[in-house]
Amino acid sequence: MQFRHIALPCAVIALLGTAPMPEPSALAARSVPARSIPVPTSVSPVVQRVIAEPIVVEEPLPADRDAIKHAIAAIDAGETTAVEALLRTYPARIATQQIAGVRVYRVTPSNADPALHRRLLVHVHGGAYALFGGFAALREAVLVAHYTRTTVLSIDYRMPPDHPYPAALDDTIAVWRDLVRSHDPHAMALFGTSAGGGLTLAAVQKLRALGVPLPAALFAGTPWADLARDDDTQFTNAGLDDVLTSTESLGDFARLYAGGHSLQDPGISPIHGDFHGFPPTILISGTRDLLLSMTVRTHRKLRAAGVIADLNVFEGLSHAQYLLLDEAPESAQAFGEVAAFFDRHLAR
Amino acid sequence: MQFRHIALPCAVIALLGTAPMPEPSALAARSVPARSIPVPTSVSPVVQRVIAEPIVVEEPLPADRDAIKHAIAAIDAGETTAVEALLRTYPARIATQQIAGVRVYRVTPSNADPALHRRLLVHVHGGAYALFGGFAALREAVLVAHYTRTTVLSIDYRMPPDHPYPAALDDTIAVWRDLVRSHDPHAMALFGTSAGGGLTLAAVQKLRALGVPLPAALFAGTPWADLARDDDTQFTNAGLDDVLTSTESLGDFARLYAGGHSLQDPGISPIHGDFHGFPPTILISGTRDLLLSMTVRTHRKLRAAGVIADLNVFEGLSHAQYLLLDEAPESAQAFGEVAAFFDRHLAR
Repeated sequence: MQFRHIALPCAVIALLGTAPMPEPSALAARSVPARSIPVPTSVSPVVQRVIAEPIVVEEPLPADRDAIKHAIAAIDAGETTAVEALLRTYPARIATQQIAGVRVYRVTPSNADPALHRRLLVHVHGGAYALFGGFAALREAVLVAHYTRTTVLSIDYRMPPDHPYPAALDDTIAVWRDLVRSHDPHAMALFGTSAGGGLTLAAVQKLRALGVPLPAALFAGTPWADLARDDDTQFTNAGLDDVLTSTESLGDFARLYAGGHSLQDPGISPIHGDFHGFPPTILISGTRDLLLSMTVRTHRKLRAAGVIADLNVFEGLSHAQYLLLDEAPESAQAFGEVAAFFDRHLAR
Repeated sequence: MQFRHIALPCAVIALLGTAPMPEPSALAARSVPARSIPVPTSVSPVVQRVIAEPIVVEEPLPADRDAIKHAIAAIDAGETTAVEALLRTYPARIATQQIAGVRVYRVTPSNADPALHRRLLVHVHGGAYALFGGFAALREAVLVAHYTRTTVLSIDYRMPPDHPYPAALDDTIAVWRDLVRSHDPHAMALFGTSAGGGLTLAAVQKLRALGVPLPAALFAGTPWADLARDDDTQFTNAGLDDVLTSTESLGDFARLYAGGHSLQDPGISPIHGDFHGFPPTILISGTRDLLLSMTVRTHRKLRAAGVIADLNVFEGLSHAQYLLLDEAPESAQAFGEVAAFFDRHLAR
């Protein structure tokens, strides 16, 4: 469970300036007494065991830039080992290449369906826009390649502290523009979870503005679509989410990514942008997800814009846990939904 | 907000026998400390004001049968007044008739669309299978009639303490069987919220078993689909849900309805039944809903059975609040989704 330790760079705020904080409501807060929450029997045994474990308390990241990079590298090293292990269960051929000057990983699953050779699924990884660069990006790419039996191209976009916004968005746009010169966008999807979900949405808004052909379908997994404010489940699910164990942590990563830009900028917080003309989008979250609110708010924005949008919420799952607990039946169900959705909306 | 006071008949257990309690997990419960939850700014001002109010503490119902009936009558009288007020905002003609010996209300909205005259939407009200008999049933029927511009037929099914399970199910089946003799089921839907959502699902399982033509679409609003166990959000959202303020209360109403039958019986808890061959179903819940888990578990059951199932979860809403706060924009959005879903799946 290396993914759990996405540690909190408290002092990063000092490093990177002062983006505005969300405005709290002037209305009275509600006091909820201390409670004992039983492990639900309505989730799989795998998820029950994880919920029964004590929450891992995050350690704050150090203050200076080099120490932050060192801490990120340590987390990424753990995740790299985890991806290597994952490939023993879900074998795939991994090749690196440069597209438009950006490094990408081409993930070809061993169960690739030759009938789907025209399809290409483009992945932007999660990790709060700071973690899981390089090979550590590939957990979700490997799982989606396996469940869709299709090649996945994962973009190793640049990240802070060296490359804050808009580097990640620029790299994603550059790769996509290059790809649609040689691939039919009707057979292409764009997807990612958490920061990758937010980046997916921001990239489509940007592509539309640029007049570049859009993907034919999107998967935005529990998207970090609003870096500017704390919505309801960031409070109600605090202490229940096993993966995101601090709402303050999210704010710190947000400022690290924004690098002085406004968190309200739709390029950073696409929930503030326009969803008209979006391709069909599947969203996945869990009832214990700190970003459940963000997921359902994104779903409503898409629906209000007349977009086909398919919400899936899993009982008892924390943030991105369908991705982290690949051995859980909930994970197979989630990626089964993604695969069916892509198959329904992508050309062959 | 009469609907809030769906009071808790503690002593009803003694009255109506001993259905088995859910088995708790043997794994360690999680301690969540006392917290202050701010009013979210991500919901409409109407919902913000409701969330900012203190939760109304339920008064237990009295012990004996006559006193229970008296308490239910008082709640229903308050809701009857509320429905009368609602009709000033959403005018409709209300007519009563008997179908198969069961009283039904025919609700014809003043904005009825003549082009939809072949459609018929059949409603089973909520209220924990004990409340909102008679005219008090009509809140949801009036709103759905308005938003769909279609006639709604609301079934005033029999209820405990005089008529426990299977009276409600029998009445629903009897009315439906009669209706499909003279109406095209391809132009008919069945719907309800809370107990009405559970009854909708149980009725379709029963109709399928009987070989009676099924509705062409369902709306199961935050369905009380599992009376037998407490799933996750019954604990995690306790103290946050403004409408269902006690998970114990649900258990008491469940035993009142079951009347000695097993709570595991799919006729009572349709989540334990089979969803294959179900018509397309729309589900609605909120992030603070005590029955969010039940809604998403039902969604997964439908999907696993290959059914078209459309989940909608609203930021910050408590149980059935889309129904109770008709002045909130969230209510218009929710019923807008229902209307669009019915229009997509029903014949004209």
